Amino acid sequence: MRPDKLDRTDPAGAIAAAAQRCSNWGRWGADDVLGTLNFLDEAKRREGAALVRRGVSFSLAQPFDMDGPQKGWRRRTNPVHTMLDTGTDAERGGQGFPHGFGGADDVVFMPLQASTQWDGLGHVFDHGMAWNGRRAGAVVTAAGDRVTGIETAAASIVGRGVLLDVGRAMGTDGELSDGFAITVEHLEATIAAQGESARVGRGDLVCVRTGRLSRARREGWGDYAGGDSPGLSFTTADWLHDTEIAGIATDTWGFEVRPNEFDDAFQPLHQVCIPHMGLFIGEMWDFDALAADCAADGVWDFFLCAAPLPVTGAVGAPVNPIAVK
Amino acid sequence: MRPDKLDRTDPAGAIAAAAQRCSNWGRWGADDVLGTLNFLDEAKRREGAALVRRGVSFSLAQPFDMDGPQKGWRRRTNPVHTMLDTGTDAERGGQGFPHGFGGADDVVFMPLQASTQWDGLGHVFDHGMAWNGRRAGAVVTAAGDRVTGIETAAASIVGRGVLLDVGRAMGTDGELSDGFAITVEHLEATIAAQGESARVGRGDLVCVRTGRLSRARREGWGDYAGGDSPGLSFTTADWLHDTEIAGIATDTWGFEVRPNEFDDAFQPLHQVCIPHMGLFIGEMWDFDALAADCAADGVWDFFLCAAPLPVTGAVGAPVNPIAVK
Amino acid sequence: MRPDKLDRTDPAGAIAAAAQRCSNWGRWGADDVLGTLNFLDEAKRREGAALVRRGVSFSLAQPFDMDGPQKGWRRRTNPVHTMLDTGTDAERGGQGFPHGFGGADDVVFMPLQASTQWDGLGHVFDHGMAWNGRRAGAVVTAAGDRVTGIETAAASIVGRGVLLDVGRAMGTDGELSDGFAITVEHLEATIAAQGESARVGRGDLVCVRTGRLSRARREGWGDYAGGDSPGLSFTTADWLHDTEIAGIATDTWGFEVRPNEFDDAFQPLHQVCIPHMGLFIGEMWDFDALAADCAADGVWDFFLCAAPLPVTGAVGAPVNPIAVK
Amino acid sequence: MRPDKLDRTDPAGAIAAAAQRCSNWGRWGADDVLGTLNFLDEAKRREGAALVRRGVSFSLAQPFDMDGPQKGWRRRTNPVHTMLDTGTDAERGGQGFPHGFGGADDVVFMPLQASTQWDGLGHVFDHGMAWNGRRAGAVVTAAGDRVTGIETAAASIVGRGVLLDVGRAMGTDGELSDGFAITVEHLEATIAAQGESARVGRGDLVCVRTGRLSRARREGWGDYAGGDSPGLSFTTADWLHDTEIAGIATDTWGFEVRPNEFDDAFQPLHQVCIPHMGLFIGEMWDFDALAADCAADGVWDFFLCAAPLPVTGAVGAPVNPIAVK
Repeated sequence: MRPDKLDRTDPAGAIAAAAQRCSNWGRWGADDVLGTLNFLDEAKRREGAALVRRGVSFSLAQPFDMDGPQKGWRRRTNPVHTMLDTGTDAERGGQGFPHGFGGADDVVFMPLQASTQWDGLGHVFDHGMAWNGRRAGAVVTAAGDRVTGIETAAASIVGRGVLLDVGRAMGTDGELSDGFAITVEHLEATIAAQGESARVGRGDLVCVRTGRLSRARREGWGDYAGGDSPGLSFTTADWLHDTEIAGIATDTWGFEVRPNEFDDAFQPLHQVCIPHMGLFIGEMWDFDALAADCAADGVWDFFLCAAPLPVTGAVGAPVNPIAVK
Repeated sequence: MRPDKLDRTDPAGAIAAAAQRCSNWGRWGADDVLGTLNFLDEAKRREGAALVRRGVSFSLAQPFDMDGPQKGWRRRTNPVHTMLDTGTDAERGGQGFPHGFGGADDVVFMPLQASTQWDGLGHVFDHGMAWNGRRAGAVVTAAGDRVTGIETAAASIVGRGVLLDVGRAMGTDGELSDGFAITVEHLEATIAAQGESARVGRGDLVCVRTGRLSRARREGWGDYAGGDSPGLSFTTADWLHDTEIAGIATDTWGFEVRPNEFDDAFQPLHQVCIPHMGLFIGEMWDFDALAADCAADGVWDFFLCAAPLPVTGAVGAPVNPIAVK
Repeated sequence: MRPDKLDRTDPAGAIAAAAQRCSNWGRWGADDVLGTLNFLDEAKRREGAALVRRGVSFSLAQPFDMDGPQKGWRRRTNPVHTMLDTGTDAERGGQGFPHGFGGADDVVFMPLQASTQWDGLGHVFDHGMAWNGRRAGAVVTAAGDRVTGIETAAASIVGRGVLLDVGRAMGTDGELSDGFAITVEHLEATIAAQGESARVGRGDLVCVRTGRLSRARREGWGDYAGGDSPGLSFTTADWLHDTEIAGIATDTWGFEVRPNEFDDAFQPLHQVCIPHMGLFIGEMWDFDALAADCAADGVWDFFLCAAPLPVTGAVGAPVNPIAVK
Repeated sequence: MRPDKLDRTDPAGAIAAAAQRCSNWGRWGADDVLGTLNFLDEAKRREGAALVRRGVSFSLAQPFDMDGPQKGWRRRTNPVHTMLDTGTDAERGGQGFPHGFGGADDVVFMPLQASTQWDGLGHVFDHGMAWNGRRAGAVVTAAGDRVTGIETAAASIVGRGVLLDVGRAMGTDGELSDGFAITVEHLEATIAAQGESARVGRGDLVCVRTGRLSRARREGWGDYAGGDSPGLSFTTADWLHDTEIAGIATDTWGFEVRPNEFDDAFQPLHQVCIPHMGLFIGEMWDFDALAADCAADGVWDFFLCAAPLPVTGAVGAPVNPIAVK
């Protein structure tokens, strides 16, 4: 579907239709908690490992600190890191340890989606229903996600990564403008421009660079968290489903184009992808260093290890994704 | 040195002597922040990736939740995970989103060394001095570690891992008893017993399984956090230095044998390894599933990606280490 | 009703009957959020102020720190206090302020019922119903208590306090044993023993000392938080209702006697008092210094200011209650 | 001293001179931890209690929630309140309690100076020296304030409050403009205008309303936290000292006028008042409802109970101050 065919007045109808076309409910059994990670099999991990040619590694994480983009929306703050013991104290003496031992220790308070993260399958619901046809209230209570908590995916997310630098291929000076809706055509054109190493298929972990983070880095966060942004068009739902990718991540706050493509809407593509497709979505990743390297050597795929921090029952999780080429 | 040669009354003397023998200060320049991670080069990462033969992956992380071992020592609690939005609320309606969208969101408060973690180079000091000869108070203030914060190692810790299952090789029913001091002899004997794939050398990430976690899993945490435990003997300092390993992790709370091998001491091996050697030490890792697999196929090395969560300025960091065979 | 008349096998029946007898639903209108605080009027505040004869003040708060009794039940930890800036850093220099200015700053993470606190009216429900006949889910979501949040009582809880030292009057060495159920007879006998200044009536804030905290202070916390304890008998429900007191607090974790007086029960008196009666219940208060003073001068009533920290939407709140005699 | 006599280029000199004139070091002995609270004696508490004529009470606290003014300066966030259990969950069932019991519970993470608060005596230092001549690093480490922690003042801060509505007396529409420096002349003129009930003397708790909060309430927070503001002039130091007040609070973020009255300065009056004078300073209080009442009845003094939450070792503390008239 093309964006210009969307009925801007009917997000609910569009969501329902896409959900029906793209549903994976029951595909991996009634008890499934992994969704599209089922596509990421051992063969794919071997394929990923074989992509390590030079041994260079990249962290795709943004910093986790108070200088992040969060401004308090729905109580999301930036991570607050405080010390339990410091080097200043150790140097001054008085920590109470013997033989000159000194220590520093620390603590963090952070929303699990404050910075670079994976959305878990319990993060978004459609009309009260969660992934695989479960009732939302049977999955995520105040005690956390007791079914699809991110710990269930602790060991899974390692395989072949592919960077689609749509910002570089389709944008201006490497960046897409805010409100730019990335369509299937843009994705396919980027793949074609980047060549064979950028092919996307079953079990891959797709990284989409829009350039939005590069802009925030240059101009300040502004409304990076929740404001206007390039991102995937609602119309990519079928492509995301049909390619059978294991996961997809962007360098933006919210994965989808913002403003969303309906008159009154909030993240409609999430509403299809997470509860119906079981797709793992990553947000706020940093692809800039990797993208520069890929552009330089013309190789766009790599071994990607993006294991979420396994906070039991989490509906999202911070991650330090590592790409190795 | 053999443990029975240690002068139990003089930890300060033993530490000073070992520090002198094992110091890496200045080895990588005055500005170095990576310590032994300098040994982990691109060749080593290629070697690690080549170990992926089957594509099976293991998470070496313990769960991050309130059921952990922490009991409040130096204000270390277990991770507290709370919800900002729930599925119950979404199912009931009233979250304020359009077109049936529902969401769950969450937050965590946790000491950075509450569960599976890396000690950063700012974690331990010797007489007020930090890694590479810096004054502790010039490195770690209440604002965090401004020099060797864990973010400096965000991309580095990926390479060849080697599991030394000392519990299986030297213990009873796969476990070493509390107070068992693992010596160089035990390490070498384990390597010999496990064979060629267990060789340890420059740039490797060494995983030492004692069985202590298996015991806690079976019997309850008890004093897992800070109490008696098997662990490395103080006398392994030179081996840790001379092998030029990049890092080492155990399945125990504190890496070293406890009680420590001096009459009045606190983690003396840390005091040599972190500030003087610049060694990365991992604690509270879970090797049980990996160890079973290694015992079954006789292959003890693997690709290991153990990228810390890059909390800016952290002196330690939670990690979800992934081993791929 | 006497405790020996309770049918231990039917808590639900007893609760339903007591709830019917003691309900205040609608008494102050459909929109009421204050419950029994409606009894605490301006005349009562004048009466309280008139009790200030010497000008001596007592804090009835326990310390808020890591040495508290919490052990993690339902994710309740002790308060964790960490520093954002320290005197050590200020003394060493480098905080970045001009003209010799130095500062210290701090942060706390704490369950709102970790230490001395008031239960808000959104803290407990009966069969999904909250105070004044509202549905629990319409009152308290993951966004907090949007109706009866503790901030609605921010200015109210100041008036006449009365200490009933049941431990001293009925116990051994000033303490009631664990499992001791305080009945109406015990309360009335204590009042009689203490004299006129101990009378209890409409709008009063009643403080019941059991001695449980004194014991914990002497012997260690043990199972202070949630374990066996003296406390109010379920059979006091009607007295609590008929006296028209504004609030009641104890020096125990849970106000009620524990084990509870039914075979399979959890805090049945709460289930009557909070949702049906709208009664404000305080827990973990420290009456020891005040009690010693009252015993010495024979005056058991005082001005009490027990204003909760007005965390918006809180279902409980920490408080530093101040008694002035 | 008049503000126009200040040498804007020499804050250090002005601070040193004022510190010498206004020092209370040693006044209450070498071990003192209460500073000016020593002025607040039992007679003053009786005087305060006698001011309760009508029995009406006012909370002077701002809300503690995410809608506050904090923007992250020095890691100060707004309070983050999250739920451990909710009414939605209780209504749906599944909390695991018997006989229809349901519960809600909650937790807060907050900087202790996020909202209405007292500065403790360990909050500010002068050239590395804390209150009463102690070295800052001997008082406040990463373990908190081990000497003058706010818990030492837990029972003290209750007595006679006096509201000086400088905004109403000297401002426009009840508000002083940002940058307005309140001098001794303004304070005295306000007292004179308000009459006998506004007299200020030894042991009083002085409340200064500037109208800054009223403006923020009307126009949005803007830079309320740390930006331009009316406030006390540096030149009031001697008045604050000579009046022998026990404490003083304002409706602003930082008590002092901002920008400060020197070319390059940060809160110079704090640097005199806290470490040298031992003065308790309150910030971010809300006087608007109380001020309206005082203006209506012409009575400006009242019983004030402003007991800080006794977080052990805190250098500042949240408070819900209660004024009773």
